[in-house]
Amino acid sequence: MTIPAGQFKAGLDGIVVVQTAISEVDGANGRLTYRGYLIGEIAQKATFEETAHLLWVGHLPTQAELDALRTKLVSHRALPEAVTALITALPTDADPMDVLRSAISAYGAQTKIGGKATLDQAIALTAIFPVVLAAFHRNRTGQPFIAPRSDLGHAANYLYMLTGQVPEAHHIRSMDTYLNMVADHGMNASTFAARVIASTESDLCSSITGAIGALKGPLHGGAPALVLKMLQSIGTADNVEPWITTTLNSGGRLMGLGHRVYKTYDPRAEILREVAREAASPEMFALAEKTEHTALDELHRRKPNERLWTNVDFYSAVLLQAVGLPGDLFPPTFGVGRVAGWTAHILEQAPKNRLMRPESEYIGPRDLTYLPIDQRQGE
Amino acid sequence: MTIPAGQFKAGLDGIVVVQTAISEVDGANGRLTYRGYLIGEIAQKATFEETAHLLWVGHLPTQAELDALRTKLVSHRALPEAVTALITALPTDADPMDVLRSAISAYGAQTKIGGKATLDQAIALTAIFPVVLAAFHRNRTGQPFIAPRSDLGHAANYLYMLTGQVPEAHHIRSMDTYLNMVADHGMNASTFAARVIASTESDLCSSITGAIGALKGPLHGGAPALVLKMLQSIGTADNVEPWITTTLNSGGRLMGLGHRVYKTYDPRAEILREVAREAASPEMFALAEKTEHTALDELHRRKPNERLWTNVDFYSAVLLQAVGLPGDLFPPTFGVGRVAGWTAHILEQAPKNRLMRPESEYIGPRDLTYLPIDQRQGE
Repeated sequence: MTIPAGQFKAGLDGIVVVQTAISEVDGANGRLTYRGYLIGEIAQKATFEETAHLLWVGHLPTQAELDALRTKLVSHRALPEAVTALITALPTDADPMDVLRSAISAYGAQTKIGGKATLDQAIALTAIFPVVLAAFHRNRTGQPFIAPRSDLGHAANYLYMLTGQVPEAHHIRSMDTYLNMVADHGMNASTFAARVIASTESDLCSSITGAIGALKGPLHGGAPALVLKMLQSIGTADNVEPWITTTLNSGGRLMGLGHRVYKTYDPRAEILREVAREAASPEMFALAEKTEHTALDELHRRKPNERLWTNVDFYSAVLLQAVGLPGDLFPPTFGVGRVAGWTAHILEQAPKNRLMRPESEYIGPRDLTYLPIDQRQGE
Repeated sequence: MTIPAGQFKAGLDGIVVVQTAISEVDGANGRLTYRGYLIGEIAQKATFEETAHLLWVGHLPTQAELDALRTKLVSHRALPEAVTALITALPTDADPMDVLRSAISAYGAQTKIGGKATLDQAIALTAIFPVVLAAFHRNRTGQPFIAPRSDLGHAANYLYMLTGQVPEAHHIRSMDTYLNMVADHGMNASTFAARVIASTESDLCSSITGAIGALKGPLHGGAPALVLKMLQSIGTADNVEPWITTTLNSGGRLMGLGHRVYKTYDPRAEILREVAREAASPEMFALAEKTEHTALDELHRRKPNERLWTNVDFYSAVLLQAVGLPGDLFPPTFGVGRVAGWTAHILEQAPKNRLMRPESEYIGPRDLTYLPIDQRQGE
């Protein structure tokens, strides 16, 4: 098929690639809904398990449904042998996103997850993410592995397996809220990658492995760790203004501000800011808030037409640090939440799947003649 | 942003997602070109190394360029420790596609491939694919690992590491031709998945890991193995007609026929048929050819409007069996060739990258009210 020139649009902006009943992102009005519920309604009330059930099944669980889901999640907290072998063999300074991607892939290879994706597979994969991260983190810090505790929920057990301490209630609530906030978000790049892979009728682990790879990118899930680095580099409230001015004057980039879809305040950022206000140390929160206000003022003054606002990454960094996570676990912890959305999208796609096979526009030379190697010209 | 209803097109048919100078697929006329060269010109003349250089760099290599590339490929044939540990720890009956996906991911985790993709990274990843597969195959069959031989080219060394025997010249040529044929093919699902992942500025291994996952799907790279199963199930030439009639009458599917883009004979199938004619046993080739002709006649009679023709998978199966590969190594061997194209696409995209962030159309309920758990209704 010959493609008329000029149809191409870099980045697929505005191209509708799927129909979905999972989440709706209304960027112009700063609204995000999961299955018809405003994110602000769910975030601080539901546990992550309830949100995952909502995304997967389509309605908020009854107590009986929630109990059944919790039991299943708990039953899938064991690492298969090959995954443990891999985590132990990898260098202790490996990127945790690489470790998560490899461990989830190996999980699929060992457990032979295959065929059409099922809810049970989605639950099993969601259950294993925090276990992988905790196992790697304990191993790299020379500490013994902490066995999961079946009386702890998903968020609490993650923090417990990282530290060996049952976390305080407000840390558990902060983590549940964080995971809820990042659990799904329309056709973001990692969810899209997962759906492209699933469209070949490949297995669930293949899709999720690809999604983790996409989430690793600095333009996607890598941002909160960069926000933390930015705040650490600023250091003190006194330094906010000179730091931002110097950075912007030298063409540097501020992290956690601006979003492809939201042209107003990201609704998730607003909620995370209030959670961070409670969870973080007063000094850290004050530094973050002053940085946010100063940065927005400067950006709005310098680029009045770009509608740059605070995005989800900004206060994620403050919150995740407050509950005790090291910076390099921020991106995979984004994955701990987002895997619920990824798997929900694959489950949604399976019954009416069609191979995603778009077109490319060829812009290279044509009609070249093959020459034997001794007649070729190099460059 | 509100998306007007009806813009959505399942499978992205006809949507131009990238501009590329790597390959051009002209489905209506059955033409495939790499960098301006007709595939029929390259397939049986160039080695895989020459084709890979063409895809990566944009021109066929001079002797000096080819020598340099060969040296680099040879230098990257060593498995990092964690990859060996993983391959050894996985069950011997694991799916080789799962093993390849996990090993390549672990390769990235161990070697810390990161930042913007480079040609050296592309060469290293291309070099390691056959080594991973051979190591797994030797291990699962209880045979010792065969060290690579630096005097053998890419295709020859792959067959050598699988068997421990230096392959016959015509097998090497068959394998080079096969790898050339599958090295790139426009915006197929795995290449597209790789480019979506790369658009987040994630690393090369993340993209390739996702691409392997997509290639695993039965609608993509899984097909040649199914062609072999079909031919084995037919068994003898006498059984071709009754088998096909019975299968089509009962709603079953014939493998290796029909393609989303080609509405004529796939140009790759034509070349592979002639290579298979030389490489395969006369009985196997006769069975395949009779199956092809009978199947096309029946399909054209039953579905005259669908323009179903032989695709690349059909004679791939005959060829790969003839050079001694077991059926479950067909899909990852497709990857051994396609990794050249995947990496070429990522290298092409990097300098003018834009995050791929399409839209979804929301088709679910709206404005639901959050209820406490004791007031919820189940289903």
